[in-house]
Amino acid sequence: MAKPLRVALLGCGVVGSAVARQLTDDAADLAARVGAPLELIGVAVRDVTKPRPESGVPPELFTTDAESLVSNADLVVELMGGLEPARTLLLRAIEHGAAVITANKALLGADGPRLYAAADARNVDLSFEASVAGAIPLLRPLRESLAGDDVQRVMGIVNGTTNYILDKMDRTGAALPDVLAEAQELGYAEADPTADVEGHDAQAKAAILASLAFHTRVSSDDVHCEGIMGITDADIRDARKIGCVVKLLAICERTPDGVSARVHPTLVPRSHPLASVHDAFNAVFLETALAGELMFYGKGAGAAPTASAVLGDLVQAGRHRVVGGHGPRESAYAELPVLPIARTQTSYFIRLDVLDRPGVLARVANVFGAHDVSIESMRQGVRRSEEGLAILQLVTNQAADESLVATVEELRKLDDVHEVSSVLRVEGM
Amino acid sequence: MAKPLRVALLGCGVVGSAVARQLTDDAADLAARVGAPLELIGVAVRDVTKPRPESGVPPELFTTDAESLVSNADLVVELMGGLEPARTLLLRAIEHGAAVITANKALLGADGPRLYAAADARNVDLSFEASVAGAIPLLRPLRESLAGDDVQRVMGIVNGTTNYILDKMDRTGAALPDVLAEAQELGYAEADPTADVEGHDAQAKAAILASLAFHTRVSSDDVHCEGIMGITDADIRDARKIGCVVKLLAICERTPDGVSARVHPTLVPRSHPLASVHDAFNAVFLETALAGELMFYGKGAGAAPTASAVLGDLVQAGRHRVVGGHGPRESAYAELPVLPIARTQTSYFIRLDVLDRPGVLARVANVFGAHDVSIESMRQGVRRSEEGLAILQLVTNQAADESLVATVEELRKLDDVHEVSSVLRVEGM
Repeated sequence: MAKPLRVALLGCGVVGSAVARQLTDDAADLAARVGAPLELIGVAVRDVTKPRPESGVPPELFTTDAESLVSNADLVVELMGGLEPARTLLLRAIEHGAAVITANKALLGADGPRLYAAADARNVDLSFEASVAGAIPLLRPLRESLAGDDVQRVMGIVNGTTNYILDKMDRTGAALPDVLAEAQELGYAEADPTADVEGHDAQAKAAILASLAFHTRVSSDDVHCEGIMGITDADIRDARKIGCVVKLLAICERTPDGVSARVHPTLVPRSHPLASVHDAFNAVFLETALAGELMFYGKGAGAAPTASAVLGDLVQAGRHRVVGGHGPRESAYAELPVLPIARTQTSYFIRLDVLDRPGVLARVANVFGAHDVSIESMRQGVRRSEEGLAILQLVTNQAADESLVATVEELRKLDDVHEVSSVLRVEGM
Repeated sequence: MAKPLRVALLGCGVVGSAVARQLTDDAADLAARVGAPLELIGVAVRDVTKPRPESGVPPELFTTDAESLVSNADLVVELMGGLEPARTLLLRAIEHGAAVITANKALLGADGPRLYAAADARNVDLSFEASVAGAIPLLRPLRESLAGDDVQRVMGIVNGTTNYILDKMDRTGAALPDVLAEAQELGYAEADPTADVEGHDAQAKAAILASLAFHTRVSSDDVHCEGIMGITDADIRDARKIGCVVKLLAICERTPDGVSARVHPTLVPRSHPLASVHDAFNAVFLETALAGELMFYGKGAGAAPTASAVLGDLVQAGRHRVVGGHGPRESAYAELPVLPIARTQTSYFIRLDVLDRPGVLARVANVFGAHDVSIESMRQGVRRSEEGLAILQLVTNQAADESLVATVEELRKLDDVHEVSSVLRVEGM
């Protein structure tokens, strides 16, 4: 057994506490797997006087001097979140030759390449399994197991809060505001749920996934993002009628022209493996050249699940300290252009309230035809006879998103069209 | 870019051909990911004159002299299968300092520790992702991503042929012999399907999974194994009636007393993620201390999917050649006893044809009680009134398998019991 490895922990919230607790409770197993004991040398927090009994950390190990702490560690685990001071501390840790483990998707999505370059220059590990889909072993399989294959498509449910909300709406028929309020009460959604429901959390994760999957650089800003706040119980019912369920998906694609990455509410057929991902679970569905279809399923958040991913990275980084070598570096050799959403191929579900008069269907169909968008299926909904309106529900075949946008714009101008009451993308048909 | 790494291929069947083809077609990507070109220096086959156009291998690279070939390689990929000469060749390759990649579950299940020890002594990689669940990145996640967690349970559909058969029986109501014949016609089952339908293929995989999951040694001989040939369409219908589906599962468990590993047809609730694994797909469901429930889903066999796993291992082993270090060694520090099936905790589904007379239920229930087996649920099936018989279907709570065996033996002796017509284990309730 080699000499102990010095571990520094930045942040001691629920995940940090769970990691610290395991370092004590599972010390013998972890040492056997690393080939050296993991010794916690300090935990950087904002307030050292705050009691954190669940962490099991002796009070003298808490410090506000994160800078000194990271300069003395072999392995630094960052669980503070946010861009600063996390970025500065990680760069300092790397500068001092420490391997770093982080769950910070916002930082990686915004400024990953800078961290990768620093770790590369100092020849240390930079690992971040916990940053996407929590406990699910996903980034390591993408970076290592599938390194001999070519990933073509990634479709992921990578935000548990929004999946909980959409799944609950689907199961109970309730409206979004009610389900959100309930989710907040149960702790599935934050008091300020913006990052989740507006899709920003998934957006950062999509950037990380696309970068790893396609060996190129994609930042959060490259990812088109739409949240779930516009989803109504009527949308959920419409989805059900055409055999679909609504999910907030992160979708990353490799096309002949480059890569695309986007986050938006999506109709998914109920027969698709992603459709049966319920509650706050996460799942990522991959399509690759050789392996075909793969899916990874598990818990995307929570103290213990996230700690599982962090500790897995910690054991690997520790092993590398003991036996030499290092984990995968940034693999961005492909240098692919990132396509804007306008050029991404998608399908639309469109619900129209139209005037119930002769020739309407032909005039509506003409608009689609004029933009080279073909209609995959059409159904006429319940007539609201008192208003003289009919409801049309259409699903298009794949077309460039800009053509679909133009189609919808023109539909809105049509005299026959009272309202375009819903537009949602469809995948996996 | 480092100097080329010499790759030797042992065997050139469908998987070997797919690997060779990718080494040519995807050479630039693979080199970028490894940090060095992968150069195929030879392919060992039994008959060099047999044309193998799909492999794209130049005829002069084929050789019958596998021993010389492995002595000159940096990386050896073994896809011959069977115990010999695969074992001798892998040991020789390791002796010469080559990293080895194999898909040979039979060899690993029977004699893994000998290979691990040899690779350890020579400090080279021994990788075998393709040996279990084909294309699904599973062994690397188990060995690396979950190295900071404790796996408690593994339940896997790891044989595509039997899943195809059972799924087809469930969907069509057809009998096993008919479905097997059709599977053979379609190429989903071999002309001699013994290894699949008797469970031996899954047995070797269960040994590999249990060893990796629990950091201990489990060989194929330690794995209790029952195949699917006794499964009738009546069993499938009974399963359906209680909301279950029949799957051939490899189940590995960590208990306070040790580990157990077994393969048998199993009733699984339709709400369980494994229940919706259709056709010849594989999936492995894990329960861990921290991550909770995880599932990995994908193709378990086929040329391209298996090649994906082999090439992933090849890229990793190549990277280690270039940057130093090595993949995980055998981790068997836990040295846990393997429990016999008799001591394993399971539940049973039991179908009894009983005489339709007063007091039967009480006498049947008494037998369960006498063996400390509690009944979870009971339903009385359609009476075959012409024979004066009733059908009882019972599901027990968990009990030691030996208690369940003793219960069934005593039921068979009961005057009231005309026949114990089905006994199947139940999991995941």
